[in-house]
Amino acid sequence: MMPILLLDQEKCLKNIERMTRKAQANRLSFRPHFKTHQSAEIGNWFRDFGVLSITVSSFRLARYFVESGWADILVAFPFIPQDIRELNALSKTARISILLDNPETLASLESLEDHTPYYVDIDTGYGRTGIKAENRGAIEELISASGANPRLRFKGFYCHAGHSYKCTDPMERLAIYEKAVVDLGSLKEHFAAYEPIVLYGDTPTCSTRDNFKVFDELTPGNFIFYDLTQVMLGTCSAEDIAVAMLCPVSGKYPDKKQLLIHGGGIHFSKESLQVKGAPVFGRVASNSEKGWEIPGEENFLTGLSQEHGVLEQCGSLFEKTGIGDNLMILPVHSCMTANLMKAYRTLDGKIITGISL
Amino acid sequence: MMPILLLDQEKCLKNIERMTRKAQANRLSFRPHFKTHQSAEIGNWFRDFGVLSITVSSFRLARYFVESGWADILVAFPFIPQDIRELNALSKTARISILLDNPETLASLESLEDHTPYYVDIDTGYGRTGIKAENRGAIEELISASGANPRLRFKGFYCHAGHSYKCTDPMERLAIYEKAVVDLGSLKEHFAAYEPIVLYGDTPTCSTRDNFKVFDELTPGNFIFYDLTQVMLGTCSAEDIAVAMLCPVSGKYPDKKQLLIHGGGIHFSKESLQVKGAPVFGRVASNSEKGWEIPGEENFLTGLSQEHGVLEQCGSLFEKTGIGDNLMILPVHSCMTANLMKAYRTLDGKIITGISL
Repeated sequence: MMPILLLDQEKCLKNIERMTRKAQANRLSFRPHFKTHQSAEIGNWFRDFGVLSITVSSFRLARYFVESGWADILVAFPFIPQDIRELNALSKTARISILLDNPETLASLESLEDHTPYYVDIDTGYGRTGIKAENRGAIEELISASGANPRLRFKGFYCHAGHSYKCTDPMERLAIYEKAVVDLGSLKEHFAAYEPIVLYGDTPTCSTRDNFKVFDELTPGNFIFYDLTQVMLGTCSAEDIAVAMLCPVSGKYPDKKQLLIHGGGIHFSKESLQVKGAPVFGRVASNSEKGWEIPGEENFLTGLSQEHGVLEQCGSLFEKTGIGDNLMILPVHSCMTANLMKAYRTLDGKIITGISL
Repeated sequence: MMPILLLDQEKCLKNIERMTRKAQANRLSFRPHFKTHQSAEIGNWFRDFGVLSITVSSFRLARYFVESGWADILVAFPFIPQDIRELNALSKTARISILLDNPETLASLESLEDHTPYYVDIDTGYGRTGIKAENRGAIEELISASGANPRLRFKGFYCHAGHSYKCTDPMERLAIYEKAVVDLGSLKEHFAAYEPIVLYGDTPTCSTRDNFKVFDELTPGNFIFYDLTQVMLGTCSAEDIAVAMLCPVSGKYPDKKQLLIHGGGIHFSKESLQVKGAPVFGRVASNSEKGWEIPGEENFLTGLSQEHGVLEQCGSLFEKTGIGDNLMILPVHSCMTANLMKAYRTLDGKIITGISL
């Protein structure tokens, strides 16, 4: 038996509904990021909530979702010149938007065949991609240079403030948000002649804010599943997590009350969280009639190698668990876990697949 | 363009040859671990060196390699009771050996249909799986209890001293090795009536030792590709690494001389190494006529998210590199990277696939 990624569809739908309603209540467009689930079937669940436009992180995912009927897709990665053919190909049947943050990229877009909306990627402090919000000259230079290409259409600004993931203090996260509001509000004003819209939204911020001020469109992804990282950030409860890995137990080691599961880095990913100064890779949930529930006792996946998962100091779980039992483990980072597993099993036993390689 | 895992077949073959010769010189059997490459085609390269028996880490891999013609496979994971059907199925056409470390597992083996060799998994200090070498009573109990099953055959001891990966000091690694020699030598003597053989061998130890004393069979895996972790451990040179990821560059950020590549946690895995107190996820190699070479200047992949790879403080590489160029990146942990990519491109452009999901 291999580890199986269980999916609680009801929790998923609740998570989608909550975020959709929040966007509606704030009169914002909603362009969820589909890199989290990477599944055509799960993507379709969003249609029932009126979602028509999506975000992805590669042209591989863009093609997959175009083929499953999505007609408005933002590839939220600074445009890769090598992807020009694929952009031209997909733009024949769908509206593909791109991100730009450097005029050097424009040369590769000279062979663009269709009108292509683009957003300027803005860095409000994360430091991964984008032009620094303060660097108005560079933003102007890019927009102005792009004007030489009659097929490129400047639509506005995109910002992923991923440094919100580094804040366990809600006040720090609020400060990141407020800086983005000021930065992007000021850009919106400065470039008002273009009527730019602003796309924003990591899951921590979208889950915890109720007023989005200068933003026009929300682009979170992780919220559909949530995970232990989000619980630690205080942006969801453990009960909101919609995926858990079912793993067989095949070892018991009394010295450290240690259990061995089949479930390693190739299932969970090696992404970890610090709990009491040590890395953990998952948390044990307990079986319930409805799938799983969150036990009072905290037992963590404390070690991972390629296929092995180790749970040290398991307390009463150690006594209760036998070799041949299955444990359900909530993941640290559901996007990475889902990417590795590429398939889900719903609580009523249905298999849902994701994009294959 | 997606990231592509390049494979230098010549380096692979050299790595295989070196380890095969070492086993031969020491009159040891060689049972390489195939979890590293997970590819039938790459597995076949070992046949030319006379390899007939292999190690894998799951029944999924066992089935895959049985189907590609391997007839002697050790599943080096404490036996998972849920796998009994698969064990019975595969044992019809191949000799499948298993690991045991707990008498509780024996109940699931009562329905064993064919003679099945097993090894007792011994823990010499790693602490992941196995019965502690000192706990001779538990070892005796297991061997004795297994005697009730006429189809189970005790063959010897298996030890993976994975704590060798935690030692950058060769003397520490030597101490781990010497303890294993004493522990397993003593078990071999104590259980001499069974004529047990001893299987041993992580890549750091097998790469650096020249005398294997009480061991009978070597089971390393990573050595076929090596990686930056092995370089840091001093068990190979950077020139021995046989895989590199080809990644397009799509961002340049002058403030921190930072480059953005398409190549993230879903390509490399999030496994990291500490370099000067900070995590790194890969190192830049430079293009050469023969594939890649190791430059004097050290540039590291300093940040990874799902699809983004960030290289900070790139020195002269920053100036030389343009948007639309490709970089070659040596991985931190080639097993995890190969598992994610599931396909390789050789330097002459041939695609080699691995096991699919």
